[in-house]
Amino acid sequence: MSIQHPYLLFLGDAADQLAAKTAQGIAHWRPDWCVGQMRLDECHADLGLADVTLEQAAAAGAKTLVIGVANRGGVISEAWIEVLERALLQGFDLAAGLHNRLADVPSLAAVADQHGRRLFDVRHPSRSFELGNGRKRSGKRLLTVGTDCSVGKMYTSLALEKDMRARGMKADLRATGQTGILIAGSGVSIDAVVSDFISGAVEWLSPANEADHWDVVEGQGSLFHASFAGVSLGLLHGAQADALVLCHEPTRRHMRGLPDYPLPELKDCMAANLAAARLTNPAAHFVGVSINTSHMAEDEAGPLLQYLERELDLPAVDAFKDGVGPILDRLD
Amino acid sequence: MSIQHPYLLFLGDAADQLAAKTAQGIAHWRPDWCVGQMRLDECHADLGLADVTLEQAAAAGAKTLVIGVANRGGVISEAWIEVLERALLQGFDLAAGLHNRLADVPSLAAVADQHGRRLFDVRHPSRSFELGNGRKRSGKRLLTVGTDCSVGKMYTSLALEKDMRARGMKADLRATGQTGILIAGSGVSIDAVVSDFISGAVEWLSPANEADHWDVVEGQGSLFHASFAGVSLGLLHGAQADALVLCHEPTRRHMRGLPDYPLPELKDCMAANLAAARLTNPAAHFVGVSINTSHMAEDEAGPLLQYLERELDLPAVDAFKDGVGPILDRLD
Repeated sequence: MSIQHPYLLFLGDAADQLAAKTAQGIAHWRPDWCVGQMRLDECHADLGLADVTLEQAAAAGAKTLVIGVANRGGVISEAWIEVLERALLQGFDLAAGLHNRLADVPSLAAVADQHGRRLFDVRHPSRSFELGNGRKRSGKRLLTVGTDCSVGKMYTSLALEKDMRARGMKADLRATGQTGILIAGSGVSIDAVVSDFISGAVEWLSPANEADHWDVVEGQGSLFHASFAGVSLGLLHGAQADALVLCHEPTRRHMRGLPDYPLPELKDCMAANLAAARLTNPAAHFVGVSINTSHMAEDEAGPLLQYLERELDLPAVDAFKDGVGPILDRLD
Repeated sequence: MSIQHPYLLFLGDAADQLAAKTAQGIAHWRPDWCVGQMRLDECHADLGLADVTLEQAAAAGAKTLVIGVANRGGVISEAWIEVLERALLQGFDLAAGLHNRLADVPSLAAVADQHGRRLFDVRHPSRSFELGNGRKRSGKRLLTVGTDCSVGKMYTSLALEKDMRARGMKADLRATGQTGILIAGSGVSIDAVVSDFISGAVEWLSPANEADHWDVVEGQGSLFHASFAGVSLGLLHGAQADALVLCHEPTRRHMRGLPDYPLPELKDCMAANLAAARLTNPAAHFVGVSINTSHMAEDEAGPLLQYLERELDLPAVDAFKDGVGPILDRLD
């Protein structure tokens, strides 16, 4: 089921650095897994990794070519296909988080089939799930929830996994979005699951485990987002989180994509998440707040974090700048 | 997009009356649409309608043969297929709410294609949807919500539509489950929609309308059901309900399918629904409670309804026994 690493990160003809955001996330969080980058002539992104050929990447042990670039519309560019075919012939599996599927490109499907390679279209669940059963599972779970979409839930989850492991704790990211899945090597793109099975898919993703093992479940959306709240609630119920971390971006003027919707107050957002989480785990509680201060001046960010710590009586960190140590100190 | 009526109700080899529940719902709510029933030799259900042949049904004007029976596993029985093929040749469209699709039976797909007939697999959305945008739409909306699954939301919704129309109000059921869709002739099986698009699908299902027009949106699941709450929340947000009706079955011992989960208190359930509904419609409010008292003694049901009226300060009715008049009196 898992995507095999090491990876070769394919940047294609990325229009700019932002288009290679997925590859950048992988290179940042899994540097040991990345043997290098591969760029076409028109590529305007650079991860600072070695530029390698397919042959060099294979010699360095790479098992999977990961398409770490998104072009407009999420399509698979014609310019890429010849390279991808050669990669399959060279022995690589392919992985992508695009809207369009590698498996729907006839030549890629045929070559992969002929040579026993695998095509991972991580945005599209490749299996079916049971209905959620709500039964308590052993092991511990932390879920990141948000005031909005794209406020740092994946980043915070990865920082939590990293710092947990650095402390010698047993911890695994349970990825629920395409970039997280490529970084973790497995997961379920939860917003692509049929809605009847949201919580069941999360129960499958985060199965029973050792009593002292932590699953860090990557949250999605927000209970206060009019487009996606159903996904967030099913995820919250399926995760049966013991610990919750609220993620927030303080300069956001309105809910992402919804100009008429203001962001919720942090306390309201926490209360709603807590009430919902306690349906499937009465012990659920918040252990911290993760604030993305990247759009704030340094002399504003610090005081805000201090203010929130006092106001919410919880550790408030910028996971990117400061790590998540104070949050981990709160875990039982 | 709509399923054409009149209908011929096909009961197949229904094992018992319960297996023909879908057909029974259609016959009850749309008697004018039903020219008769068609039963195979081994059928143990009877709707009390005339038994007719395909030829007789066609002569009576029937346009669609509706498979109103569910057998174990929701499959399309071998015993039915010959009849369904003949129906297509006779000029009928086919409609079913089964897990398995008519369109996946090669002979049915081929005959339908050859002769320009339509196959309606109403459990499976046949189109894609936009993301929910949360923008206010004109017209009025009432949504039925529940303490649990299968407590009478569809039935209450149909009673509301019927009584609204009897009062000369403009009203349409917006069906969200397979039986409701067959009764309404159109709708979206919301729990089969990809989870990213739950609220968007409901926005599509209940578009802008005249200022004095009521959409009665059929609810699904419950915010307190650990398997399905995500569906219920997306539906609540997409419906932008002005008016909410809470549906409840007082003898239910635990949440359906979840022996360890008690039912929520009615007040808690109303508060949670109201808080969530107000995200997309700040004017949302409850206008009544619909109690399924079919499993209660008559001398217990009446006092319970009176108690709830006082306790909740809302009309409390058994929609089946008493209709929903007192709830309609509450609508502005």
